[in-house]
Amino acid sequence: MIAVHLENGRVDVRRIPWPRRRPGDALIRLIAAGICNTDLELQRGYYRYRGIPGHEFVGEVVQADTPRLVGKRVVGEINLGCGRCEWCKQGLGRHCANRTVLGILRQPGVFQEYFTLPEQNLHILPDSIPNEEAVFAEPLAAACEILDQVRIPAGSPVAVLGDGKLGILVAQVLRVHGAEVHLYGRHAHKLKIAAAAGIATRRCAKRLPLAAYERVVDATGSAEGLNLALAMAKPRGTVVMKSTVHGAVPFDTSAVVVNEITVVGSRCGRLAPALRLLRDGEVRVREMISARVPLRDAPQAFTLAATSGILKVLLDP
Amino acid sequence: MIAVHLENGRVDVRRIPWPRRRPGDALIRLIAAGICNTDLELQRGYYRYRGIPGHEFVGEVVQADTPRLVGKRVVGEINLGCGRCEWCKQGLGRHCANRTVLGILRQPGVFQEYFTLPEQNLHILPDSIPNEEAVFAEPLAAACEILDQVRIPAGSPVAVLGDGKLGILVAQVLRVHGAEVHLYGRHAHKLKIAAAAGIATRRCAKRLPLAAYERVVDATGSAEGLNLALAMAKPRGTVVMKSTVHGAVPFDTSAVVVNEITVVGSRCGRLAPALRLLRDGEVRVREMISARVPLRDAPQAFTLAATSGILKVLLDP
Repeated sequence: MIAVHLENGRVDVRRIPWPRRRPGDALIRLIAAGICNTDLELQRGYYRYRGIPGHEFVGEVVQADTPRLVGKRVVGEINLGCGRCEWCKQGLGRHCANRTVLGILRQPGVFQEYFTLPEQNLHILPDSIPNEEAVFAEPLAAACEILDQVRIPAGSPVAVLGDGKLGILVAQVLRVHGAEVHLYGRHAHKLKIAAAAGIATRRCAKRLPLAAYERVVDATGSAEGLNLALAMAKPRGTVVMKSTVHGAVPFDTSAVVVNEITVVGSRCGRLAPALRLLRDGEVRVREMISARVPLRDAPQAFTLAATSGILKVLLDP
Repeated sequence: MIAVHLENGRVDVRRIPWPRRRPGDALIRLIAAGICNTDLELQRGYYRYRGIPGHEFVGEVVQADTPRLVGKRVVGEINLGCGRCEWCKQGLGRHCANRTVLGILRQPGVFQEYFTLPEQNLHILPDSIPNEEAVFAEPLAAACEILDQVRIPAGSPVAVLGDGKLGILVAQVLRVHGAEVHLYGRHAHKLKIAAAAGIATRRCAKRLPLAAYERVVDATGSAEGLNLALAMAKPRGTVVMKSTVHGAVPFDTSAVVVNEITVVGSRCGRLAPALRLLRDGEVRVREMISARVPLRDAPQAFTLAATSGILKVLLDP
């Protein structure tokens, strides 16, 4: 079978043997995968990752200990906890100190024809969610995570910075939750996609409104995003950080201290709320697919995904 | 009368006329003032401040619109709000966008023999609080501010980083509140002062405990403090930033995002809880006075205050 390999910033495609399934794991055939900004950050050197990347997927279970799983279409939680620590016991295996993370940290990812994942990480998809929507379950869960962390009263204004994939998902999730969302971005065609999903959008000119929002989400994926978000937050406001950026970012600590801002780091979320949103048709994701590329052309797909103006690139086996 | 003047990093003492008292203001005779780390940061270029610094004081009212104030010993809130905006109306004039700040922002400070402050900023001191304790009211209020922002359950462990003036005050305030405080510092004699006040202290060797505390307060006053505090916080933990540092600080955003840390900026606080702590003898502050220097020797006092190992330097008129 073929698999994508990432090493020292180079992406190539290799022929490798099928993965071995351990007890408790399911063997999964890839149906579709998505390239995430985190994959591009891994390529830039984040985590010094070497191996098979990929963590956004829809697949079909082909082997498992639990017979009812076989043949089912699934998505999966990407963090693999130890199952025994205080975090795992709280259902927060995504903070387990000994976790591996699918395609990110000591766990081969999904950019290959077949891969394994613990059965307990899997969620069976209802028939009503097509593949090209289900593949957004993981980033959508990351967007939903904000609501598990920060109280956002219905009707309250929230600024979302960044019209990339995550920004558009965050904007939709917060809008469904009842917030008055203003999405700030630089790309007319991306903002148009968000606007079609019912989001109020603002094209960023040079000036952003200062000290204007009690809640700001930085989903720019850029090193500048945090300082922009801090400048847009009112005193005693909250800035949610959804951008993972490789390397240290220069940070105006006095803005945080003097204005008593609360900065909340936010990463992966639970898949269940994301699947509910997809099942109920509450968010629009298909328009975010910029291209579908065969797995064997993964190097070109990575280059495309890193191109300005491109949203989601899917890989098809 | 004499006044301290700060400009381009230079501190000198000048002879100037008495300040003019505007309606609503009190004219105050300085009894004692404290040099704060913020004063040293102003000297290093923070806020590009030019003028009379100083915001920690005890004084005696010599003229006021309100007769009962005259002759009283007072301390004062250092933020002067507009009195009309949403912040001022909530009693949070310290976040008023048009505020001036005593000795920090467009308002002459207290390092002079006489100064003015709005009557509404003043708190009359009970006789039971002597001058050399009352002069700590303002930094103690800044320490108390944490309790207005972050919920700290009784008995829960909190790490406080930094055995400087603010760190020792924060440690004491949190201990009185009921937290299990561990104060981390580098100076044996400073830690000894904290230990005498009932604080459990830890001398920092090279290694600090990683991912060990749900709550960490950075009171190091240094650019490195924030990243150390982030490393010591457990996933989903809270880091309180009490350090104001001049300039941008390189900041490991991925630690915040991946571990979903909440970072809370914290600045000035209300004087009332600080005065209650001093009145009830709940905190020990006198041992923190390293030196008392006449106002006319302010340049030497600034140099002394910036010397490693020195805690509070008081200025006497």
